Amino acid sequence: MATVLTLAGDGIGPEIMAQAINVLKRVNETFDLGLTLEEGLIGGVAIDATGEPLPEETLTRARAADAVLLGAVGGPKWDAIERSKRPERGLLKIRSALGLFANLRVAKLYPQLANASSIKPEIIKGLDLLIVRELTGGIYFGEPRGIRTLENGEQQGYNTMVYSTSEIERIGKVAFELAQTRTAASGNPARVCSVDKANVLEVTELWKQTITKMQQADYSDVALSHMYADNACMQLIRDPKQFDVMVTGNMFGDILSDEAAMLTGSIGMLPSASLDEAGKGMYEPCHGSAPDIAGQDKANPLATILSVAMMLRYTFKQEAAAQAIEQAVSDVLDDGLRTPDILDKTEAGLTQVGCQQMGEAVLAKL
Amino acid sequence: MATVLTLAGDGIGPEIMAQAINVLKRVNETFDLGLTLEEGLIGGVAIDATGEPLPEETLTRARAADAVLLGAVGGPKWDAIERSKRPERGLLKIRSALGLFANLRVAKLYPQLANASSIKPEIIKGLDLLIVRELTGGIYFGEPRGIRTLENGEQQGYNTMVYSTSEIERIGKVAFELAQTRTAASGNPARVCSVDKANVLEVTELWKQTITKMQQADYSDVALSHMYADNACMQLIRDPKQFDVMVTGNMFGDILSDEAAMLTGSIGMLPSASLDEAGKGMYEPCHGSAPDIAGQDKANPLATILSVAMMLRYTFKQEAAAQAIEQAVSDVLDDGLRTPDILDKTEAGLTQVGCQQMGEAVLAKL
Ligand SMILES: CC(C)[C@H](C(=O)O)[C@@H](O)C(=O)O
Ligand SMILES: CC(C)[C@H](C(=O)O)[C@@H](O)C(=O)O
Repeated sequence: MATVLTLAGDGIGPEIMAQAINVLKRVNETFDLGLTLEEGLIGGVAIDATGEPLPEETLTRARAADAVLLGAVGGPKWDAIERSKRPERGLLKIRSALGLFANLRVAKLYPQLANASSIKPEIIKGLDLLIVRELTGGIYFGEPRGIRTLENGEQQGYNTMVYSTSEIERIGKVAFELAQTRTAASGNPARVCSVDKANVLEVTELWKQTITKMQQADYSDVALSHMYADNACMQLIRDPKQFDVMVTGNMFGDILSDEAAMLTGSIGMLPSASLDEAGKGMYEPCHGSAPDIAGQDKANPLATILSVAMMLRYTFKQEAAAQAIEQAVSDVLDDGLRTPDILDKTEAGLTQVGCQQMGEAVLAKL
Repeated sequence: MATVLTLAGDGIGPEIMAQAINVLKRVNETFDLGLTLEEGLIGGVAIDATGEPLPEETLTRARAADAVLLGAVGGPKWDAIERSKRPERGLLKIRSALGLFANLRVAKLYPQLANASSIKPEIIKGLDLLIVRELTGGIYFGEPRGIRTLENGEQQGYNTMVYSTSEIERIGKVAFELAQTRTAASGNPARVCSVDKANVLEVTELWKQTITKMQQADYSDVALSHMYADNACMQLIRDPKQFDVMVTGNMFGDILSDEAAMLTGSIGMLPSASLDEAGKGMYEPCHGSAPDIAGQDKANPLATILSVAMMLRYTFKQEAAAQAIEQAVSDVLDDGLRTPDILDKTEAGLTQVGCQQMGEAVLAKL
């Protein structure tokens, strides 16, 4: 009997999670998955209830669970809190404590939504790009860090960007192997682009060297290229389809994965997986907690629902159930249902729906 | 009698510089500017000649000059050199040694080139965005840095991202004041967006606090907003016209300014200025050395020519001469002349030209 811990979090988290849980419960029955669902607190709601963004109890239950499904954390309400206690710290802490070093973010264009992007259709048609972001190292976790007072009385802030060979190898392996899996499915040659700033930062010079050696030793069937982060950010706009799998560190990955998501024009559609070395994972939408529309039934639940599909695929190896959810999502898009974030007002035949209606429409297809 | 030191550098540097020098010489005569031009070595060519990417002689002459005009540095030929001797180090060293802390990069859409972008025309029509990037601090220059061997035998790379209050105030002042200047010219309200990752990095938390205090104390006429770097990278694609002036640190500025440039679809058109506290500056195109097309007369010299205009405006206060150059560039675009990087093959009435022909066409308009 496997357990899924759901952490709805803040802002639109509870709304989108409610819809995703309905979907998860439904496939749990239909496909007889035998999953038990539990709920827990993280982020701002956890601060309000316990004073901590990641209460010990949540962490204990997350460790015990087989997978975690997360909504979103953070909001202006908790912005003034002392930094070690903010909602985001809860997210960073659970990633780190569970060893979720491999963050997979897919930027995939739904053909039904091609017009929602600010990019010209011919540039993004057929886009299906995987960003593999290192999630438990780099400048996000490097020590020393802080704000200190200098001798002359002014303040100085500092953080440390750090990677060791084994950390780089671990995430490189995930990227190379996923490139191999993807080529098996698509028939396209396996390609990995590693993103660094090796012309300036020593830490990413080690990154580049390490990834290069791995390819030479073990992955000569995968074509490897390297790109500086500034250039990668440009190339994603100029010609995103030149990429298949991109692999990079925590901070560049944060930026580039958001950029890649926005290329599709529908960040409200994109799920993500964060995996440990055993394949256990936390699954969450790529978007944030969107406090400005929270509680108004305007949020798009599809990224969270698709995160359920990723969870079934990667952690529970239930490919059929995963595909059923993905198909249901595609079907409701075919039917013309759109939450406000993906509604193209110039297109005929579309119906604007709220978060709940969207969730129910997916359920009805299952 | 003022002096301009020209540093052509590597790759396409010499070609584009030759055209820019012709333009500078011409306005020097027509507007009786009394400028003396000198040439110097930087980057790979300097390594080949002296073993150093920034020879002492170049630095001495750059200090003595009133302005520096730079082409581009770097190329695969020098990639294998020990890192402290690579071409890029010459660029970083001259920025730092001359105290050029304020890097101004304009992402402006030339209406004649609207089709060259991968972004839909309605999203970028009229785009005119200024990115103010801190250029002599942050993770680019922070210590400690390097690659070391750990006790367990593996290697570890590390860099330090660091900013002090005075460094932040210095660049913040430039951004706020440029926003004020721009509003005087455009009539639009003055707006600055400060980009950080304050939800994760303490160094950028200090950044955010400092910029906030400055606005409250001295720039209450400027509307200030804050954005996380990942979100800024998305918003630049979704709706770039929401921004007027963006201010950020060295690394985020590197990434975001390249992204903003690519939005216009014509990075070959975009100049930049790097200024010290007295307004002395180094001027260079935003694009790189493009070794793949070097020596083939394919490069676009307009960004370098427009950098000359920026130099005349910011360092020499010769607005009329600056505008004459900008008008000449606009005129050749109106005439339909295009280097390959800005040629839209689907558009009628355009003539593809090389680097030299483009430079001569600008000259002919002056
Ligand atoms: C909320 C924030 C700490 C987080 C990050 O920077 O990792 C978010 O932007 C993300 O990408 O999941
Ligand atoms: C060449 C490189 C060192 C440089 C930088 O990162 O600053 C370049 O990308 C730039 O933006 O001028």
